[in-house]
Amino acid sequence: MQRDKKKTRRSRATLKDVADKVGVHLSTVSRVLNAKTRSMVSQDVAQRILHAADELGYKTNPFAYALRMNRSLTVGVLIPDLTNPIFPPIIRGIEHALAKMGYTAILADSDNRAEDERVIIERMRARAVDGLILATAHRADDVIETCVKDGIALVLINRTVDRDDISSVTSDDFDGIAQAVAHMANLGHRRIAHIAGPQSISTGFDRYQAFKAAMRKQGLKADDKLIAFTDSFSERQGQAAVETLFKRRRKFTAVVAANDLLALGCYDAVEARGLRCPADISVTGFNDMPFVDKFKPPLTTVRIPLYEMGVKAAGCLLEILSDDKQPPRRIKLTPELIVRGSTAPPKAF
Amino acid sequence: MQRDKKKTRRSRATLKDVADKVGVHLSTVSRVLNAKTRSMVSQDVAQRILHAADELGYKTNPFAYALRMNRSLTVGVLIPDLTNPIFPPIIRGIEHALAKMGYTAILADSDNRAEDERVIIERMRARAVDGLILATAHRADDVIETCVKDGIALVLINRTVDRDDISSVTSDDFDGIAQAVAHMANLGHRRIAHIAGPQSISTGFDRYQAFKAAMRKQGLKADDKLIAFTDSFSERQGQAAVETLFKRRRKFTAVVAANDLLALGCYDAVEARGLRCPADISVTGFNDMPFVDKFKPPLTTVRIPLYEMGVKAAGCLLEILSDDKQPPRRIKLTPELIVRGSTAPPKAF
Repeated sequence: MQRDKKKTRRSRATLKDVADKVGVHLSTVSRVLNAKTRSMVSQDVAQRILHAADELGYKTNPFAYALRMNRSLTVGVLIPDLTNPIFPPIIRGIEHALAKMGYTAILADSDNRAEDERVIIERMRARAVDGLILATAHRADDVIETCVKDGIALVLINRTVDRDDISSVTSDDFDGIAQAVAHMANLGHRRIAHIAGPQSISTGFDRYQAFKAAMRKQGLKADDKLIAFTDSFSERQGQAAVETLFKRRRKFTAVVAANDLLALGCYDAVEARGLRCPADISVTGFNDMPFVDKFKPPLTTVRIPLYEMGVKAAGCLLEILSDDKQPPRRIKLTPELIVRGSTAPPKAF
Repeated sequence: MQRDKKKTRRSRATLKDVADKVGVHLSTVSRVLNAKTRSMVSQDVAQRILHAADELGYKTNPFAYALRMNRSLTVGVLIPDLTNPIFPPIIRGIEHALAKMGYTAILADSDNRAEDERVIIERMRARAVDGLILATAHRADDVIETCVKDGIALVLINRTVDRDDISSVTSDDFDGIAQAVAHMANLGHRRIAHIAGPQSISTGFDRYQAFKAAMRKQGLKADDKLIAFTDSFSERQGQAAVETLFKRRRKFTAVVAANDLLALGCYDAVEARGLRCPADISVTGFNDMPFVDKFKPPLTTVRIPLYEMGVKAAGCLLEILSDDKQPPRRIKLTPELIVRGSTAPPKAF
């Protein structure tokens, strides 16, 4: 077993090694290596100690530091599906913002398995992360309840929970879906379907509510028979949902999907039925994830600022870490409809 | 500044808290919490201590553990471009294999900036990672030389260095490019261009050498005028390279690109010139990164087992960590040509 091995790959130079080399007391070395107390030691001795420390490759031990400060300078970042292309730009934003303040992200990926989230968060907490950025929130989320109860610094990203006292950075789902529905209506679509995400997740639930509200606003009926629900935001689930709609034999000319992966599944189902997008059925996504502009056809979708979302979530967490009396912030970023080749006026029928 | 704050968000329950609650000596608690020494304490007392530890939320301090063992149970993973879709599956493979052994990956992204790699690795080493998995290798790489000199446990992934004494997990670039060139030749192409990656990186260099060898094997001439070099594996560089080829006014009907992002740039350049892929120009990529099957047209490319590459690299590093006398292993995974819509016979000309 790895854990029981005492053999170490290389021995780390200690304060004592430095003290022995220079021939001074340990406490003198300690004073010199701390910038705040360096002036207590004569410049000549300080120079010799710094030189010896450099030569021996002495490094401040981050674990000793973390023990002293009860700070690890690491932040746990939990992603529900690292292979969803929205997450790399979000993670890059988080990493860049954390690195500026000397923090490092510890990343983990729950692979959409809710049961793994608790285990992963427990492992991160066992490594004494200073805080968590979670992209895995469910609307009612026991794991998050536990974190809150235990006083863990926490920011939710992309998804949020029903309770409103936890900091989060999300997109304005209502605004985004309203733009997508208005676009379809302006093209002349009347029979518009919705592929909804999981209703246990805020993005799935809010976008479904937003769809119904936007249809009303356009004076259109959100036909229950033209709404299909999915268990996860995946291409496969999107395909299955559209196949369900086809089986209901209720005509539709447009699909507003709750995210880009679901929209990609719509493409698959439309093609499998021998129909064409957008000639027969128009499709919109949500997220503007990387590469959807290259798809066949390029996807009309709602762009959310992914990198900025990561930067803001990291900033929000750093604020909490510097002052845990911060009131919770719920930041909503403004989405923007990007019109491409997957939407067109409906054929007359 | 964060670093100087002594205030802690919550105080961690200590061994002493547990001892005080049960009314026993500290050393008794310590014995009970260590499975190996638990039998030295009466079952009744052990039960009360475990119950109290649970109630107080006591957790073994990983920093104290790491100090004692000189092990952090973390592995640094450095990626050159997290937004390249090949990396999420590779990272997922690394994470899954590490997690099984109780290790956690600390991920960082150098954003293709070589100058940042040293800083990031220095930061990882300051956090006492037990080892590194680097996807950023250059053929001659000072940063890696330093790591080797300092005795850091190290595995290279996807790319490797010219020296052959460092463990690595890569794909068989020669075999992969040979399959792509043979496919083009079998379709009837004779004037085949190559968009080469950076020659300072093994994947760029080896695939270029492989292209020349494969052309010879097919009895075709690798025309220097039909080879363009790039500075990075990016869509933009791929586009610029094909535009350079067009300017040379030497006819070609096929492009073998050194990776999928470069191939995607070929699409852009071909389209911008009013030509069609594959009708006018066939294109192959390398990697079979996620979503290339959805592109317009779906990309013919060389598939390498990305997830498996991550699993194998993690396994290789864990072997080194358990026995640093391991001879270096250079694992090459077998690639497979996936034929899709971006290749077709050349038009007669």
